[in-house]
Amino acid sequence: MRKEDLIECHGRIVPFIHETPILTSRLLNEIAGADIFFKCENFQRMGAYKMRGATNAISQLTDAQREKGVVTHSSGNFAQALSLAAKSLGVKAYIVMPSSAPQVKKDAVKGYGGTIIECEPTLAARNAMAEEIRSKTGATFIHPSNDLNVIAGQGTACMELLNEQPDLDVVVVPVGGGGLIAGTALAAHYFGKGCSVIGAEPFEVDDAYRSLISGKIESNETTNTIADGLKTELGDKSFPLMQEYVDRIIRVTEEEIVAAMKLIWERMKIVIEPSSAVAFAAVLREKESFKGKKIGIIISGGNVDLKNLPF
Amino acid sequence: MRKEDLIECHGRIVPFIHETPILTSRLLNEIAGADIFFKCENFQRMGAYKMRGATNAISQLTDAQREKGVVTHSSGNFAQALSLAAKSLGVKAYIVMPSSAPQVKKDAVKGYGGTIIECEPTLAARNAMAEEIRSKTGATFIHPSNDLNVIAGQGTACMELLNEQPDLDVVVVPVGGGGLIAGTALAAHYFGKGCSVIGAEPFEVDDAYRSLISGKIESNETTNTIADGLKTELGDKSFPLMQEYVDRIIRVTEEEIVAAMKLIWERMKIVIEPSSAVAFAAVLREKESFKGKKIGIIISGGNVDLKNLPF
Repeated sequence: MRKEDLIECHGRIVPFIHETPILTSRLLNEIAGADIFFKCENFQRMGAYKMRGATNAISQLTDAQREKGVVTHSSGNFAQALSLAAKSLGVKAYIVMPSSAPQVKKDAVKGYGGTIIECEPTLAARNAMAEEIRSKTGATFIHPSNDLNVIAGQGTACMELLNEQPDLDVVVVPVGGGGLIAGTALAAHYFGKGCSVIGAEPFEVDDAYRSLISGKIESNETTNTIADGLKTELGDKSFPLMQEYVDRIIRVTEEEIVAAMKLIWERMKIVIEPSSAVAFAAVLREKESFKGKKIGIIISGGNVDLKNLPF
Repeated sequence: MRKEDLIECHGRIVPFIHETPILTSRLLNEIAGADIFFKCENFQRMGAYKMRGATNAISQLTDAQREKGVVTHSSGNFAQALSLAAKSLGVKAYIVMPSSAPQVKKDAVKGYGGTIIECEPTLAARNAMAEEIRSKTGATFIHPSNDLNVIAGQGTACMELLNEQPDLDVVVVPVGGGGLIAGTALAAHYFGKGCSVIGAEPFEVDDAYRSLISGKIESNETTNTIADGLKTELGDKSFPLMQEYVDRIIRVTEEEIVAAMKLIWERMKIVIEPSSAVAFAAVLREKESFKGKKIGIIISGGNVDLKNLPF
């Protein structure tokens, strides 16, 4: 992907997204011993950066494709993002969700205008159902993370961050399917001044950490983490970009995630998801290596169930 | 108080406070049927607008007075505000707190450098202890709300709001001791274009509502509200300003407060106190009268106990 591709992507999606604020906190800087710039995608439309990639992917479709709609499988933020992006662009969105998904998530997708198709809660059933919808309706399948148009869209958050803070030393982002980190790595490569990119991951789902070491996409045996947005695995589009442009992955414990989340809620007064706290937890865990640096952190989202908080 | 007094006050405190952001939400505007501009004092230093008044009050002291410090009684945000403002200005702060105050609040005051003096949890004991400290140390007593320098400081939040949004039809603020609403009313009078000011209060502590009707300062028999910042009563400095410049008070139920708080947390992704939600609850309760208007709401603070949320 070229620098121009990212610039064009940003121009395409900017009428449909928020250019989210960048917040700082004197207290958190003191605690971390560094200057941290939080790019607040929890304030993004539908509450997460995923709105960027979904909007870009739909924007790239031909008129004929748009007429037939889009389809994805997701029970998380991408389901809502594709629904809202599709609605904004006047396109129909089919969302394949496991029947076990919480009602609150189903309601959110419906609220944004998506059409839900339920399936058994297995990866195989999910893929099969998405394929069935695709062949029946002619809708274009859009993967939540392993899609270059999605990756480019996610990278625009880091572009905006570097536009305001051009001399960041490093950007730290959570790693799930790899869409955000791959896009961020491209943006840092093209728009940073020697800005490195570090991923952050729970120990409980450290597939990205292991993948970068082994050189092939690794799986997770279990996914016992509070950071529910990070349970997915890397793909053949996101992984090569990570191998090329990502420095390393820092792993954090569940306790570190909750402590970082609590600090951000209490001190910055913003609502963020556990997945978003993972990046700040990584900075605190390896404080010495970040000391005195100018750090960007992408707060990936703010969609939490207030009835079910970890504090 | 003259317009110039407010302008001078703002100039005095601006090096020590945050000029907090003004946020809007497409979704909350849709729900309310109006254009709402939230002045986010939850992002203020120490997490509440009280930092403004405390800073102004200390700034007005003579060098001789500064040397002897300041004293107040408060178990809430003003205790933290006076501690931090005093620290910022190199002044000693004595904070009289009931021995029953939660440890988390005592820790916060200590964290900001205040010296805590505990007393019995009655109004009489509180006043007596503050007077004892004053006479012993020579410290200047600063009331949390019933002080014209405090009132002027609190008014600067609305000044900043009207500076960015000069044509607001109305500003809605919560009413506790009346410092915020008195300052806001002055600011709206001098800097608005026919901008009215409405107070918001829980039914459970509707002393301000009753006071404006009876023409004298009324008390609360009980204070069974989640909005713990609003339990205090009006004073002889704040009340006359309210009588002159405040349109009316809207009362809301406890359920309405929690629902408004939840909407703001979920939709705007910001952490606000129950007391702050009272103003938005008032707008939702009297939706018809606010329809199509340009409304300012001062989000007064964001200091909550995450272990003890009402959802």
